Amino acid sequence: MKKTDRRDPKGRIFDAAVKLFARKGYAAVGVRQIARKADVNIAMISYYYDGKVGLLKEIIDQFHLRYLEVLLSGVDGDKSPEDMGRSVVKNMVKFIRQNTELAIAAFHALPLDIPEIAKFKAEKVTTLLRSAKGILQQFGINDDDPVQIVAIGPSLIAIILTHFRFRPVQEKVFNVKFDDEFYEKFADTVATLFLHGINGVAARSNKNIRRKA
Amino acid sequence: MKKTDRRDPKGRIFDAAVKLFARKGYAAVGVRQIARKADVNIAMISYYYDGKVGLLKEIIDQFHLRYLEVLLSGVDGDKSPEDMGRSVVKNMVKFIRQNTELAIAAFHALPLDIPEIAKFKAEKVTTLLRSAKGILQQFGINDDDPVQIVAIGPSLIAIILTHFRFRPVQEKVFNVKFDDEFYEKFADTVATLFLHGINGVAARSNKNIRRKA
Repeated sequence: MKKTDRRDPKGRIFDAAVKLFARKGYAAVGVRQIARKADVNIAMISYYYDGKVGLLKEIIDQFHLRYLEVLLSGVDGDKSPEDMGRSVVKNMVKFIRQNTELAIAAFHALPLDIPEIAKFKAEKVTTLLRSAKGILQQFGINDDDPVQIVAIGPSLIAIILTHFRFRPVQEKVFNVKFDDEFYEKFADTVATLFLHGINGVAARSNKNIRRKA
Repeated sequence: MKKTDRRDPKGRIFDAAVKLFARKGYAAVGVRQIARKADVNIAMISYYYDGKVGLLKEIIDQFHLRYLEVLLSGVDGDKSPEDMGRSVVKNMVKFIRQNTELAIAAFHALPLDIPEIAKFKAEKVTTLLRSAKGILQQFGINDDDPVQIVAIGPSLIAIILTHFRFRPVQEKVFNVKFDDEFYEKFADTVATLFLHGINGVAARSNKNIRRKA
Protein backbone atom coordinates (compact mmCIF):
# COMPACT_ATOMS: atom_id res chain seq x y z
CA MET A 1 0.00 0.00 0.00
CA LYS A 2 1.24 3.50 -0.79
CA LYS A 3 2.04 6.09 1.83
CA THR A 4 -0.98 8.25 0.91
CA ASP A 5 -3.37 5.34 1.65
CA ARG A 6 -2.37 5.56 5.27
CA ARG A 7 -4.36 8.74 5.75
CA ASP A 8 -7.53 7.24 4.23
CA PRO A 9 -10.01 5.78 6.69
CA LYS A 10 -9.52 2.36 5.04
CA GLY A 11 -5.75 2.48 5.53
CA ARG A 12 -6.10 3.81 9.06
CA ILE A 13 -8.40 0.91 9.99
CA PHE A 14 -5.92 -1.56 8.49
CA ASP A 15 -2.97 -0.05 10.39
CA ALA A 16 -4.87 0.10 13.68
CA ALA A 17 -5.94 -3.55 13.36
CA VAL A 18 -2.37 -4.68 12.54
CA LYS A 19 -1.00 -2.91 15.61
CA LEU A 20 -3.72 -4.16 17.97
CA PHE A 21 -3.78 -7.78 16.69
CA ALA A 22 0.03 -7.94 16.84
CA ARG A 23 0.17 -6.62 20.38
CA LYS A 24 -2.89 -8.13 22.07
CA GLY A 25 -3.82 -11.07 19.84
CA TYR A 26 -6.92 -11.26 17.66
CA ALA A 27 -9.30 -12.55 20.36
CA ALA A 28 -8.57 -9.68 22.77
CA VAL A 29 -9.36 -6.89 20.30
CA GLY A 30 -12.85 -5.55 19.61
CA VAL A 31 -14.06 -3.62 16.55
CA ARG A 32 -14.87 -0.70 18.83
CA GLN A 33 -11.22 -0.53 19.93
CA ILE A 34 -10.04 -0.67 16.30
CA ALA A 35 -12.46 2.12 15.34
CA ARG A 36 -11.25 4.27 18.24
CA LYS A 37 -7.56 3.78 17.39
CA ALA A 38 -8.22 4.44 13.68
CA ASP A 39 -10.37 7.47 14.54
CA VAL A 40 -13.27 6.30 12.37
CA ASN A 41 -16.91 5.49 12.98
CA ILE A 42 -17.39 1.81 13.85
CA ALA A 43 -19.69 1.34 10.82
CA MET A 44 -16.70 2.06 8.54
CA ILE A 45 -15.17 -1.28 9.52
CA SER A 46 -18.11 -3.22 8.06
CA TYR A 47 -18.18 -0.84 5.10
CA TYR A 48 -14.54 -1.34 4.08
CA TYR A 49 -13.93 -4.82 5.47
CA ASP A 50 -16.25 -7.64 6.42
CA GLY A 51 -15.91 -6.92 10.15
CA LYS A 52 -13.07 -8.20 12.32
CA VAL A 53 -12.64 -11.53 10.48
CA GLY A 54 -12.61 -9.70 7.12
CA LEU A 55 -9.93 -7.35 8.41
CA LEU A 56 -7.74 -10.24 9.53
CA LYS A 57 -8.17 -11.91 6.13
CA GLU A 58 -7.02 -8.71 4.43
CA ILE A 59 -3.98 -8.60 6.75
CA ILE A 60 -3.11 -12.25 5.93
CA ASP A 61 -3.61 -11.51 2.23
CA GLN A 62 -1.38 -8.42 2.20
CA PHE A 63 1.30 -10.27 4.12
CA HIS A 64 1.26 -13.26 1.74
CA LEU A 65 1.48 -11.03 -1.31
CA ARG A 66 4.54 -9.26 0.01
CA TYR A 67 6.07 -12.46 1.40
CA LEU A 68 5.81 -14.08 -2.04
CA GLU A 69 7.35 -10.96 -3.60
CA VAL A 70 10.34 -11.33 -1.27
CA LEU A 71 10.67 -15.07 -2.01
CA LEU A 72 10.69 -14.40 -5.75
CA SER A 73 12.99 -11.37 -5.39
CA GLY A 74 16.08 -13.56 -5.31
CA VAL A 75 15.22 -15.62 -8.40
CA ASP A 76 17.80 -14.88 -11.05
CA GLY A 77 18.96 -17.42 -13.62
CA ASP A 78 22.49 -16.00 -13.59
CA LYS A 79 23.00 -16.51 -9.86
CA SER A 80 24.06 -19.70 -8.07
CA PRO A 81 21.47 -21.21 -5.66
CA GLU A 82 23.70 -20.07 -2.78
CA ASP A 83 23.76 -16.44 -3.96
CA MET A 84 20.02 -16.53 -4.66
CA GLY A 85 19.37 -17.96 -1.20
CA ARG A 86 21.53 -15.34 0.52
CA SER A 87 19.76 -12.58 -1.35
CA VAL A 88 16.30 -13.92 -0.36
CA VAL A 89 17.26 -14.20 3.32
CA LYS A 90 18.69 -10.67 3.31
CA ASN A 91 15.47 -9.32 1.75
CA MET A 92 13.34 -11.37 4.18
CA VAL A 93 15.15 -9.92 7.22
CA LYS A 94 14.69 -6.42 5.79
CA PHE A 95 10.99 -7.06 5.08
CA ILE A 96 10.26 -8.42 8.58
CA ARG A 97 12.32 -5.65 10.21
CA GLN A 98 10.28 -3.02 8.36
CA ASN A 99 6.92 -4.80 8.83
CA THR A 100 7.28 -6.53 12.18
CA GLU A 101 3.70 -5.90 13.31
CA LEU A 102 2.21 -7.00 9.97
CA ALA A 103 4.22 -10.23 10.14
CA ILE A 104 3.22 -10.91 13.75
CA ALA A 105 -0.47 -10.21 13.08
CA ALA A 106 -0.54 -12.29 9.86
CA PHE A 107 1.81 -15.15 10.64
CA HIS A 108 2.41 -15.42 14.35
CA ALA A 109 -0.75 -14.36 16.16
CA LEU A 110 -3.49 -15.54 13.84
CA PRO A 111 -6.22 -17.58 15.54
CA LEU A 112 -6.16 -21.04 13.95
CA ASP A 113 -9.01 -22.22 16.20
CA ILE A 114 -11.38 -20.19 13.97
CA PRO A 115 -12.20 -22.63 11.10
CA GLU A 116 -12.75 -19.76 8.65
CA ILE A 117 -9.23 -18.43 9.33
CA ALA A 118 -7.56 -21.86 9.17
CA LYS A 119 -9.29 -22.47 5.82
CA PHE A 120 -8.30 -19.04 4.46
CA LYS A 121 -4.69 -19.50 5.57
CA ALA A 122 -4.66 -22.97 3.93
CA GLU A 123 -5.80 -21.40 0.63
CA LYS A 124 -3.00 -18.83 0.88
CA VAL A 125 -0.38 -21.50 1.64
CA THR A 126 -1.59 -23.60 -1.32
CA THR A 127 -1.26 -20.59 -3.64
CA LEU A 128 2.14 -19.77 -2.18
CA LEU A 129 3.42 -23.33 -2.69
CA ARG A 130 2.20 -23.26 -6.29
CA SER A 131 3.77 -19.86 -7.00
CA ALA A 132 7.05 -20.69 -5.31
CA LYS A 133 7.15 -24.23 -6.78
CA GLY A 134 10.58 -25.03 -8.03
CA ILE A 135 12.47 -22.62 -5.77
CA LEU A 136 13.24 -25.29 -3.17
CA GLN A 137 13.91 -27.81 -5.96
CA GLN A 138 16.89 -25.69 -6.99
CA PHE A 139 18.38 -26.60 -3.61
CA GLY A 140 17.72 -30.30 -4.12
CA ILE A 141 14.63 -30.35 -1.86
CA ASN A 142 11.85 -32.72 -2.93
CA ASP A 143 8.79 -30.44 -2.80
CA ASP A 144 6.45 -33.38 -3.31
CA ASP A 145 7.50 -34.76 0.08
CA PRO A 146 5.18 -33.25 2.72
CA VAL A 147 7.68 -33.97 5.53
CA GLN A 148 10.38 -31.88 3.84
CA ILE A 149 7.94 -29.07 3.02
CA VAL A 150 6.38 -29.04 6.50
CA ALA A 151 9.82 -28.98 8.15
CA ILE A 152 11.56 -26.56 5.79
CA GLY A 153 8.80 -24.40 4.26
CA PRO A 154 7.99 -22.09 7.17
CA SER A 155 11.35 -22.48 8.96
CA LEU A 156 13.06 -19.41 7.50
CA ILE A 157 10.36 -16.97 8.51
CA ALA A 158 9.95 -18.78 11.85
CA ILE A 159 13.63 -18.24 12.68
CA ILE A 160 13.63 -14.58 11.60
CA LEU A 161 10.30 -13.66 13.19
CA THR A 162 11.22 -15.35 16.49
CA HIS A 163 14.02 -12.81 16.88
CA PHE A 164 11.71 -9.86 16.22
CA ARG A 165 9.08 -11.30 18.59
CA PHE A 166 11.66 -11.78 21.37
CA ARG A 167 13.55 -8.56 20.79
CA PRO A 168 12.19 -7.00 24.03
CA VAL A 169 13.65 -10.01 25.90
CA GLN A 170 16.90 -10.20 23.94
CA GLU A 171 17.51 -6.48 24.61
CA LYS A 172 17.64 -7.31 28.33
CA VAL A 173 19.75 -10.47 27.95
CA PHE A 174 22.43 -9.41 25.47
CA ASN A 175 24.60 -6.35 25.47
CA VAL A 176 24.03 -5.60 21.80
CA LYS A 177 22.55 -2.82 19.70
CA PHE A 178 20.01 -3.95 17.13
CA ASP A 179 21.29 -1.65 14.40
CA ASP A 180 22.10 -2.04 10.70
CA GLU A 181 25.42 -3.72 11.50
CA PHE A 182 23.70 -6.29 13.72
CA TYR A 183 21.09 -7.05 11.05
CA GLU A 184 23.74 -7.50 8.38
CA LYS A 185 25.49 -10.14 10.51
CA PHE A 186 22.15 -11.62 11.59
CA ALA A 187 20.99 -12.05 7.96
CA ASP A 188 24.35 -13.61 7.06
CA THR A 189 24.16 -16.07 9.98
CA VAL A 190 20.53 -17.02 9.29
CA ALA A 191 21.34 -17.50 5.58
CA THR A 192 24.26 -19.80 6.45
CA LEU A 193 22.13 -21.75 8.96
CA PHE A 194 19.27 -22.15 6.48
CA LEU A 195 21.28 -22.87 3.32
CA HIS A 196 23.63 -25.40 4.95
CA GLY A 197 20.58 -26.92 6.62
CA ILE A 198 18.63 -27.49 3.40
CA ASN A 199 21.78 -28.71 1.61
CA GLY A 200 22.09 -31.30 4.36
CA VAL A 201 18.44 -32.37 4.00
CA ALA A 202 18.83 -32.64 0.21
CA ALA A 203 22.01 -34.73 0.52
CA ARG A 204 20.51 -37.10 3.11
CA SER A 205 17.31 -37.51 1.12
CA ASN A 206 19.21 -38.31 -2.12
CA LYS A 207 21.37 -40.81 -0.25
CA ASN A 208 18.23 -42.55 1.07
CA ILE A 209 16.72 -42.65 -2.44
CA ARG A 210 19.93 -44.15 -3.85
CA ARG A 211 20.03 -46.68 -1.03
CA LYS A 212 16.47 -47.82 -1.83
CA ALA A 213 17.15 -48.04 -5.58
CA MET B 1 3.88 -32.38 37.71
CA LYS B 2 2.46 -35.77 38.58
CA LYS B 3 -0.83 -37.07 37.24
CA THR B 4 -2.53 -36.88 40.66
CA ASP B 5 -1.83 -33.11 40.84
CA ARG B 6 -4.16 -32.66 37.91
CA ARG B 7 -7.18 -33.28 40.08
CA ASP B 8 -6.11 -30.74 42.71
CA PRO B 9 -7.57 -27.26 42.36
CA LYS B 10 -4.04 -25.89 41.84
CA GLY B 11 -3.34 -28.27 38.96
CA ARG B 12 -6.78 -27.69 37.46
CA ILE B 13 -6.21 -23.92 37.46
CA PHE B 14 -2.81 -24.41 35.77
CA ASP B 15 -4.26 -26.70 33.09
CA ALA B 16 -7.20 -24.39 32.40
CA ALA B 17 -4.92 -21.36 32.04
CA VAL B 18 -2.55 -23.23 29.69
CA LYS B 19 -5.44 -24.24 27.42
CA LEU B 20 -7.05 -20.79 27.40
CA PHE B 21 -3.82 -18.77 26.98
CA ALA B 22 -2.70 -21.12 24.17
CA ARG B 23 -5.98 -20.85 22.30
CA LYS B 24 -7.06 -17.22 22.86
CA GLY B 25 -3.86 -15.46 23.86
CA TYR B 26 -3.14 -14.05 27.32
CA ALA B 27 -4.89 -10.69 26.84
CA ALA B 28 -8.22 -12.25 25.82
CA VAL B 29 -8.56 -14.45 28.90
CA GLY B 30 -9.98 -13.30 32.25
CA VAL B 31 -9.48 -14.88 35.67
CA ARG B 32 -13.23 -15.52 35.84
CA GLN B 33 -13.01 -17.61 32.67
CA ILE B 34 -10.05 -19.57 34.07
CA ALA B 35 -11.93 -20.19 37.34
CA ARG B 36 -14.99 -21.41 35.44
CA LYS B 37 -12.98 -23.80 33.26
CA ALA B 38 -11.03 -25.11 36.25
CA ASP B 39 -14.23 -25.42 38.28
CA VAL B 40 -12.82 -23.48 41.24
CA ASN B 41 -13.80 -20.35 43.11
CA ILE B 42 -12.17 -17.26 41.61
CA ALA B 43 -10.42 -16.52 44.93
CA MET B 44 -8.42 -19.75 44.53
CA ILE B 45 -6.46 -18.17 41.68
CA SER B 46 -5.05 -15.46 43.95
CA TYR B 47 -4.58 -18.06 46.71
CA TYR B 48 -2.45 -20.46 44.63
CA TYR B 49 -0.95 -18.05 42.12
CA ASP B 50 -0.45 -14.32 42.13
CA GLY B 51 -3.43 -13.68 39.83
CA LYS B 52 -3.25 -13.93 36.04
CA VAL B 53 0.34 -12.65 35.73
CA GLY B 54 1.48 -15.07 38.43
CA LEU B 55 -0.16 -17.95 36.58
CA LEU B 56 1.60 -17.05 33.36
CA LYS B 57 4.94 -16.84 35.20
CA GLU B 58 4.36 -20.34 36.59
CA ILE B 59 3.58 -21.59 33.06
CA ILE B 60 6.79 -20.01 31.69
CA ASP B 61 8.74 -21.47 34.62
CA GLN B 62 7.39 -25.02 34.16
CA PHE B 63 8.06 -24.85 30.45
CA HIS B 64 11.66 -23.67 30.91
CA LEU B 65 12.40 -26.39 33.47
CA ARG B 66 11.22 -29.11 31.11
CA TYR B 67 12.79 -27.48 28.05
CA LEU B 68 16.19 -27.44 29.82
CA GLU B 69 15.69 -31.08 30.83
CA VAL B 70 15.18 -31.97 27.15
CA LEU B 71 18.25 -29.94 26.07
CA LEU B 72 20.41 -31.72 28.64
CA SER B 73 18.86 -35.13 27.89
CA GLY B 74 21.12 -35.66 24.90
CA VAL B 75 24.37 -34.79 26.71
CA ASP B 76 26.49 -37.92 26.84
CA GLY B 77 30.29 -37.87 26.75
CA ASP B 78 30.38 -41.13 24.76
CA LYS B 79 28.29 -39.82 21.89
CA SER B 80 29.46 -37.75 18.92
CA PRO B 81 28.00 -34.19 18.68
CA GLU B 82 25.90 -35.42 15.71
CA ASP B 83 24.35 -38.30 17.71
CA MET B 84 23.81 -36.02 20.72
CA GLY B 85 22.13 -33.42 18.50
CA ARG B 86 19.85 -35.99 16.83
CA SER B 87 18.83 -37.32 20.21
CA VAL B 88 18.01 -33.81 21.52
CA VAL B 89 15.92 -32.96 18.45
CA LYS B 90 14.01 -36.25 18.71
CA ASN B 91 13.28 -35.61 22.40
CA MET B 92 12.30 -32.00 21.64
CA VAL B 93 9.77 -33.06 18.99
CA LYS B 94 8.33 -35.62 21.43
CA PHE B 95 8.17 -33.01 24.22
CA ILE B 96 6.40 -30.39 22.07
CA ARG B 97 4.06 -33.02 20.60
CA GLN B 98 3.01 -34.09 24.09
CA ASN B 99 2.87 -30.54 25.50
CA THR B 100 1.76 -28.43 22.56
CA GLU B 101 -0.49 -26.10 24.56
CA LEU B 102 2.12 -25.57 27.28
CA ALA B 103 4.71 -24.67 24.64
CA ILE B 104 2.35 -22.29 22.85
CA ALA B 105 1.27 -20.57 26.09
CA ALA B 106 4.85 -20.28 27.42
CA PHE B 107 6.87 -19.62 24.29
CA HIS B 108 4.65 -18.55 21.45
CA ALA B 109 1.75 -16.55 22.89
CA LEU B 110 3.34 -14.78 25.83
CA PRO B 111 2.69 -11.01 25.95
CA LEU B 112 6.06 -9.29 25.70
CA ASP B 113 4.43 -5.85 25.86
CA ILE B 114 3.95 -6.43 29.61
CA PRO B 115 7.29 -5.28 31.12
CA GLU B 116 6.97 -7.70 34.05
CA ILE B 117 6.66 -10.66 31.65
CA ALA B 118 9.51 -9.51 29.37
CA LYS B 119 11.72 -9.13 32.47
CA PHE B 120 10.73 -12.56 33.83
CA LYS B 121 11.33 -14.22 30.47
CA ALA B 122 14.74 -12.50 30.25
CA GLU B 123 15.69 -13.97 33.66
CA LYS B 124 14.65 -17.44 32.46
CA VAL B 125 16.64 -17.10 29.23
CA THR B 126 19.72 -15.94 31.18
CA THR B 127 19.47 -18.99 33.48
CA LEU B 128 18.92 -21.25 30.46
CA LEU B 129 21.98 -19.88 28.65
CA ARG B 130 24.09 -20.41 31.77
CA SER B 131 22.83 -23.97 32.32
CA ALA B 132 23.16 -24.95 28.68
CA LYS B 133 26.50 -23.17 28.28
CA GLY B 134 28.94 -25.34 26.40
CA ILE B 135 26.33 -27.40 24.51
CA LEU B 136 26.50 -25.18 21.43
CA GLN B 137 30.29 -24.92 21.83
CA GLN B 138 30.50 -28.66 21.13
CA PHE B 139 29.18 -27.84 17.67
CA GLY B 140 31.75 -25.09 17.16
CA ILE B 141 29.32 -22.25 17.87
CA ASN B 142 30.78 -19.22 19.64
CA ASP B 143 28.30 -18.71 22.47
CA ASP B 144 29.88 -15.39 23.40
CA ASP B 145 28.74 -13.95 20.05
CA PRO B 146 25.24 -12.50 20.54
CA VAL B 147 24.49 -12.66 16.80
CA GLN B 148 25.10 -16.42 16.70
CA ILE B 149 23.11 -17.01 19.90
CA VAL B 150 20.20 -14.78 18.82
CA ALA B 151 20.03 -16.49 15.41
CA ILE B 152 20.59 -20.09 16.52
CA GLY B 153 19.45 -20.27 20.16
CA PRO B 154 15.66 -20.25 19.72
CA SER B 155 15.66 -21.57 16.13
CA LEU B 156 15.18 -25.25 16.92
CA ILE B 157 12.08 -24.76 19.03
CA ALA B 158 10.81 -22.10 16.59
CA ILE B 159 10.96 -24.59 13.70
CA ILE B 160 9.33 -27.42 15.66
CA LEU B 161 6.64 -25.28 17.29
CA THR B 162 5.73 -23.61 14.01
CA HIS B 163 4.62 -27.01 12.71
CA PHE B 164 2.45 -27.70 15.76
CA ARG B 165 0.99 -24.17 15.59
CA PHE B 166 0.11 -24.55 11.89
CA ARG B 167 -1.03 -28.17 12.08
CA PRO B 168 -4.71 -27.17 11.54
CA VAL B 169 -3.60 -25.46 8.30
CA GLN B 170 -1.15 -28.15 7.19
CA GLU B 171 -3.87 -30.79 7.65
CA LYS B 172 -5.87 -29.01 4.97
CA VAL B 173 -2.93 -28.41 2.60
CA PHE B 174 -1.10 -31.76 2.68
CA ASN B 175 -2.45 -35.24 2.24
CA VAL B 176 -0.56 -36.64 5.19
CA LYS B 177 -1.38 -38.27 8.53
CA PHE B 178 0.41 -36.76 11.51
CA ASP B 179 1.17 -40.12 13.13
CA ASP B 180 4.26 -41.67 14.76
CA GLU B 181 5.77 -42.43 11.36
CA PHE B 182 5.40 -38.80 10.26
CA TYR B 183 7.00 -37.52 13.46
CA GLU B 184 9.93 -39.90 13.15
CA LYS B 185 10.68 -38.53 9.66
CA PHE B 186 9.91 -34.97 10.79
CA ALA B 187 12.38 -35.20 13.71
CA ASP B 188 15.01 -36.68 11.38
CA THR B 189 14.54 -33.87 8.83
CA VAL B 190 14.57 -31.10 11.46
CA ALA B 191 17.69 -32.62 13.05
CA THR B 192 19.46 -32.70 9.66
CA LEU B 193 18.35 -29.12 8.88
CA PHE B 194 19.50 -27.84 12.27
CA LEU B 195 22.77 -29.78 12.60
CA HIS B 196 23.98 -29.07 9.07
CA GLY B 197 22.91 -25.46 9.61
CA ILE B 198 24.95 -24.95 12.77
CA ASN B 199 27.91 -26.80 11.28
CA GLY B 200 27.78 -24.32 8.42
CA VAL B 201 27.67 -21.34 10.81
CA ALA B 202 30.61 -22.74 12.82
CA ALA B 203 32.70 -23.32 9.67
CA ARG B 204 31.99 -19.83 8.28
CA SER B 205 32.70 -18.16 11.60
CA ASN B 206 36.05 -20.03 12.01
CA LYS B 207 37.01 -19.11 8.48
CA ASN B 208 36.31 -15.42 9.23
CA ILE B 209 38.38 -15.61 12.43
CA ARG B 210 41.31 -17.20 10.57
CA ARG B 211 41.02 -14.59 7.83
CA LYS B 212 41.29 -11.77 10.38
CA ALA B 213 44.22 -13.42 12.24
